[in-house]
Amino acid sequence: MSKSRPAGAAKGAVARRSVLTAGLAGAATLIAAPAIAQSAPAIRWRMPSTFGRNLEALHGSAQVFINAVREITDGRFEIQWFGPGEIVPPLAIADAVSAGTIEIGQTASFYYIGKDPTYALACGLPFGMNVRGHAAWLVNGGGNELLDEFYKTQNIHALFAGNTGAQAAGWFRKEIKSMADFRGLKMRIAGLAGQVFSAAGGVAQQIAPGDIYGALERGSIDGTKFTSPIDDEKLGFVRVAPFYYWPGWNDAGVAVHMFVNREKWDGLPKSYQAALRAAAAQAGEFMQTKYDAENPKALRRIVGQGAQIKFLPNDVIDELSKAAHTVWADLAAKNASFRKVHESYNAALKDQYFWWQISELNYDATMTRLLRRS
Amino acid sequence: MSKSRPAGAAKGAVARRSVLTAGLAGAATLIAAPAIAQSAPAIRWRMPSTFGRNLEALHGSAQVFINAVREITDGRFEIQWFGPGEIVPPLAIADAVSAGTIEIGQTASFYYIGKDPTYALACGLPFGMNVRGHAAWLVNGGGNELLDEFYKTQNIHALFAGNTGAQAAGWFRKEIKSMADFRGLKMRIAGLAGQVFSAAGGVAQQIAPGDIYGALERGSIDGTKFTSPIDDEKLGFVRVAPFYYWPGWNDAGVAVHMFVNREKWDGLPKSYQAALRAAAAQAGEFMQTKYDAENPKALRRIVGQGAQIKFLPNDVIDELSKAAHTVWADLAAKNASFRKVHESYNAALKDQYFWWQISELNYDATMTRLLRRS
Repeated sequence: MSKSRPAGAAKGAVARRSVLTAGLAGAATLIAAPAIAQSAPAIRWRMPSTFGRNLEALHGSAQVFINAVREITDGRFEIQWFGPGEIVPPLAIADAVSAGTIEIGQTASFYYIGKDPTYALACGLPFGMNVRGHAAWLVNGGGNELLDEFYKTQNIHALFAGNTGAQAAGWFRKEIKSMADFRGLKMRIAGLAGQVFSAAGGVAQQIAPGDIYGALERGSIDGTKFTSPIDDEKLGFVRVAPFYYWPGWNDAGVAVHMFVNREKWDGLPKSYQAALRAAAAQAGEFMQTKYDAENPKALRRIVGQGAQIKFLPNDVIDELSKAAHTVWADLAAKNASFRKVHESYNAALKDQYFWWQISELNYDATMTRLLRRS
Repeated sequence: MSKSRPAGAAKGAVARRSVLTAGLAGAATLIAAPAIAQSAPAIRWRMPSTFGRNLEALHGSAQVFINAVREITDGRFEIQWFGPGEIVPPLAIADAVSAGTIEIGQTASFYYIGKDPTYALACGLPFGMNVRGHAAWLVNGGGNELLDEFYKTQNIHALFAGNTGAQAAGWFRKEIKSMADFRGLKMRIAGLAGQVFSAAGGVAQQIAPGDIYGALERGSIDGTKFTSPIDDEKLGFVRVAPFYYWPGWNDAGVAVHMFVNREKWDGLPKSYQAALRAAAAQAGEFMQTKYDAENPKALRRIVGQGAQIKFLPNDVIDELSKAAHTVWADLAAKNASFRKVHESYNAALKDQYFWWQISELNYDATMTRLLRRS
């Protein structure tokens, strides 16, 4: 049995080759060449990214992706990286991919909620699933299938390509001891998290990364969200807003995607589509592990620089959570696509935390207790 | 600036092509053909697995791996799966790969601690890092490099290819309310976890999966470890040992690897090595998301069948943790390779939980609190 299989398969391969070469004359080597060349054409794509070289895990994952595709295809499929704004504005990747101006781009889907809030669900939501839950929903819980339907309407094929892991709630100039301190806070926070923040009584501001430090120093904002320690550290917020708040209710993780123009994707040989899918998984593995390996070290350094780790009080969390539910209800009422995908997301979230509190959360709490004592 | 780069890059590509073809005569198509054929030879490997079809996430990940390699290489690299025992005994994969009897095999490294305890560190340890921490250590924390050195001595190249996620502490016939109930318990538990269990006062037994149910029914053992809900459910333990204990101090996750014979790996074209690496990442993404997506549903069903979810009391956890440290110290004293890799592992573990308690654990605890109220 175990010996007959390879033989049978080899016979099948011969049969397939005969079909392919039927009607063609000449020596086998000469015939085989064009068949291989056809399935492995030389392709060159341009890939702008929302994320610059300074974001080492995000940028590193783009390089892992590009290198994997190049190596797998023996250099026949070459993807060239461009930094934010070099050929496409950093938050215009979806538009440029959709229009076919570029073939592929690395971005976070939630930057495009202005076009449609459904984009956010590919990334994660405030008070949403953690990274593992979100990935489970995407890859094996029906999420990717639902999002594929949506992305088709945007002329995009999206490849899931990593996650940042849990981010911070942000940096603040003053302590937040209760809702009384929270109301009216001016904070740099964008997207759906900004909408939730405003609905809970804060004042959300949109400020370019380069201007945040000055705004905090002058006190024209009281706080800012950015990402997590390895990225936050570089902007030096600790010197002007030393209260570093957790948990990151705003982002339990941000999934990152490679957006591919739909026609360009459909026009690829199957082997190249498979190479892009596998390379995206490898890029994702790199991104998450890079954040997870470096964030502890960066957090220790930040604390050494004088940051005070603080946790948002329960009444603030509760108010933000309540606000989040009103934002989702509002979006669902207005947008059928968001409603459909969010229903699936929400069912997965309830499943995930039912399981998580018994398994992983309980394990991690146990480990934390044991390590605190040692 | 943004316009000059693509033009410059294109010029560079033309220049590189001239270099490649310089000195070669004949039409470009005729020159390219043998180069491509040489780099993409037809290869057929046999891949036995420790894990059978009934373990749907583990087996599914092997299929994802095989399919990705086939699709990426247009069918030129074909890997054939064999179930446990079909051509190699399930726990003899390392030996068979090392000897070159088979080219590749899917297995969990910790089954080979009898050869060397260093094998265990590729999988995870009792009271070890959770899945994210372990992956961070492997991929971006120096773990894979250290393990590569070790695997070279075993004539193996190991590709990290997924994790099961946190498992249960096991199924018990009676409640465990304190160390008094725990001492002398006869439990089916293998490997290093079994050594820790024994060191803490239990009696570890080795029983084949098919015999566990009967042994529990007869009362010849008091409890058993298996894996997590989707796999545990199939063996029906709930009917004979309804107390389902957590957290899984024994396995915060089990990383799975594709073991490749070292010479076979070195003999592969670079493009095929890259394909295997990317395919392993994709298999890993599938495995973890499959466990995470299905475990909640299986756990609900198990509870519906009468399982009682229980958590090990702190005094039992503390005793097991203390025992684990004596087991590590003992192994480190006897085995330099284990000591070296374990030191790196342990440093990463402390980093990970310093970070985790502030970020992810805090987030998940917050979500659990909010969901319990709603």
